[in-house]
Amino acid sequence: MEKKVNMPVNLKAPKNDELLSIPGIQLGVAEAEISCKSQKDLLVISIDSGAVVSGVFTKNKFTAAPVIIAKEHLKIGKSTRALIVNTGSANAGTGEEGVKNARAVCEMVANELNINSVNVLPFSTGVIMMHLPVDKISMGIPMAIKNLKLDNWLNAAESIMTTDTVAKGSSSSIMIQGEKVYVTGISKGSGMIEPNMGTMLGFIGTNANITKEMLDEMISEVADNTFNCITVDGDTSTNDSFIIIATKQSNHHLIDSKNKNYYVLKEALLETAKILAQSIIRDGEGATKFISINVHGGKNRDECLSIGKSIAHSPLVKTAFFASDPNLGRILAAIGNSPINLLDINLIDVFLNQVQFAKSGSLAKNYKESMGVKEMKSEEIALDIYLGRGKFTCTVWTTDLSYDYVKINAEYRS
Amino acid sequence: MEKKVNMPVNLKAPKNDELLSIPGIQLGVAEAEISCKSQKDLLVISIDSGAVVSGVFTKNKFTAAPVIIAKEHLKIGKSTRALIVNTGSANAGTGEEGVKNARAVCEMVANELNINSVNVLPFSTGVIMMHLPVDKISMGIPMAIKNLKLDNWLNAAESIMTTDTVAKGSSSSIMIQGEKVYVTGISKGSGMIEPNMGTMLGFIGTNANITKEMLDEMISEVADNTFNCITVDGDTSTNDSFIIIATKQSNHHLIDSKNKNYYVLKEALLETAKILAQSIIRDGEGATKFISINVHGGKNRDECLSIGKSIAHSPLVKTAFFASDPNLGRILAAIGNSPINLLDINLIDVFLNQVQFAKSGSLAKNYKESMGVKEMKSEEIALDIYLGRGKFTCTVWTTDLSYDYVKINAEYRS
Repeated sequence: MEKKVNMPVNLKAPKNDELLSIPGIQLGVAEAEISCKSQKDLLVISIDSGAVVSGVFTKNKFTAAPVIIAKEHLKIGKSTRALIVNTGSANAGTGEEGVKNARAVCEMVANELNINSVNVLPFSTGVIMMHLPVDKISMGIPMAIKNLKLDNWLNAAESIMTTDTVAKGSSSSIMIQGEKVYVTGISKGSGMIEPNMGTMLGFIGTNANITKEMLDEMISEVADNTFNCITVDGDTSTNDSFIIIATKQSNHHLIDSKNKNYYVLKEALLETAKILAQSIIRDGEGATKFISINVHGGKNRDECLSIGKSIAHSPLVKTAFFASDPNLGRILAAIGNSPINLLDINLIDVFLNQVQFAKSGSLAKNYKESMGVKEMKSEEIALDIYLGRGKFTCTVWTTDLSYDYVKINAEYRS
Repeated sequence: MEKKVNMPVNLKAPKNDELLSIPGIQLGVAEAEISCKSQKDLLVISIDSGAVVSGVFTKNKFTAAPVIIAKEHLKIGKSTRALIVNTGSANAGTGEEGVKNARAVCEMVANELNINSVNVLPFSTGVIMMHLPVDKISMGIPMAIKNLKLDNWLNAAESIMTTDTVAKGSSSSIMIQGEKVYVTGISKGSGMIEPNMGTMLGFIGTNANITKEMLDEMISEVADNTFNCITVDGDTSTNDSFIIIATKQSNHHLIDSKNKNYYVLKEALLETAKILAQSIIRDGEGATKFISINVHGGKNRDECLSIGKSIAHSPLVKTAFFASDPNLGRILAAIGNSPINLLDINLIDVFLNQVQFAKSGSLAKNYKESMGVKEMKSEEIALDIYLGRGKFTCTVWTTDLSYDYVKINAEYRS
């Protein structure tokens, strides 16, 4: 695995004491030497009984074996008690043997923790079409379990990194009915990023007291507005998984409907998930800029998202951002490529960091090249597109396309 | 405009005498200094009366002004008598002023040739959201018209180049009812290439005797199987135009139905268009490899095309090809990302230059890394994907993604 030469865009790893412990969740890591290097590459998360767990997963049709098993276990296992995560091999494109291996890993964790294997969810990230090194993982599991503790979130975040250059985590605490509710999350991902139901890997824990049904609804709403709004390269991974664990150990009333507390908790989860999702973009492969694309005035959210993604996926737009070149016509071309019916380009206004360069679909009269040159140099760029079609809005977060993106991906396995 | 440092993939410019003259079509070029450099940047094509002309154009909603006018003139002008093409400015994202300028340029050509301006079609290629330098073009038009001659196709091909490194042209001749029919075409394009109705610019002339109705049908069939099957970067340009001129000066019977001669002529046009389209890929920005993606066994052609494009647009697949790294799981991930309903991945076989690496959706047992390493080094790569769903097939041609793609597009305007 090739480490990035450049730095993430305005992103530092959290300190361990910034990541709040979640009552009911312990984490343990190990060096299982899956990728033949001395680095943490195995994580076990142990969950007290009584917790509820929800997950959303990749829509890539070449679904990885661990995703198949995690979905199956979430469905049939009444109570999730552990998560097992490895880097180095994605265990995707590995057929029946891959599924067998994912099951075997769950069995090992279950045996060590004295639980049922359907209560274990497996996760893998790394090279596709490479079999899972079950032997190495079986050596690592007891080590990771020995390492289990509450205040271990930073170690956990570090253990799931691949081409990531910094560990990604975020925490907050809120009060519900006078009771402290903590939210802590970690994520990993840097390339092959256009999540469709979650990021490569994202895990959030909370001690909130909520039913499984409500958590299932909440995770979709949170994913749609955070992980599903980011893209590095438009390549949806085979392994994307986003999990929320609610241990229910806080003493507030059970959230069993979309009441006020539902929205208080959702806001906290949204905030944590947004930071985790944006961290993936800030640490995007080869990224030198963090770009927020805000699409306003759509007939519905989907068409806003579609235009945002059309811009975010355009290699020509991305290379112009990398070069700080205000070749802004490429942005109009990308808008014109989105699959929206009856888009009236004569209504479209576009702003770059509040500088209007397109008015009513063509070059704005007051816009001068020098204004674009100045704004393009910024590391944090906001594009605001006004469609004039309706009331909906959506934000997509993305990166530029640099030499280093090519370098990292041309050398990933070497 | 930045010239590419690298070479196209197995592509040389044609010699002038390889590009056969078409009775009824004269071409003239000029240096109008649109991009402030000494290079041919203006082309006028003059067509004898009695010819029929068909065109297909970009589906990008930010349609360039010349495309709007060319479509309008093709519709209302009973007889197209001239084409005017400039590089340097795309005249797109330029609003009403852009449309006015495109009309003005047609007027100038019409005045010089003593024809009606609705019988002139305008074409532009270059930077988007930059106004057309009408003064410079007005100086260039008389020079180009003075240069009009039959055996001038290579000059014409050179005059429409932007980031292209070599001129693109192809010719053939066939016999229809004992009469010689010539087909000669030129094209330009290297980046912002995912044509949807034509390439950035492609012009084919023939002396075939065919009705406008039949030529209109033929051009769609030809475009769908040639220019619409190529992609460099998935960015459909605002200016894509593909034109066929049939001067009807050959003495065979008029082709007024889908008879045998229709298919003989179509085959010749397909062959020329395919060479022109492939030339654009071989000269794709930063290209080091020419990749043919053959998708077999689809339920219909569209789903084959969709899978081909999903692979061709994946930055991860493209960088792996650039690095000659057989990280072939990325190809499976890209297949899994195509929007096909109920794709059964367990039926999918994939071959790299006849080496099978995926069988029934997972790593083929007999495949060894060394086999992939060897094939990935080739400059000409064929991927064959068997879906096992039906009888349809489709080929997509594309390039890899190299440092030079980023370099060229980060520096295009500097």
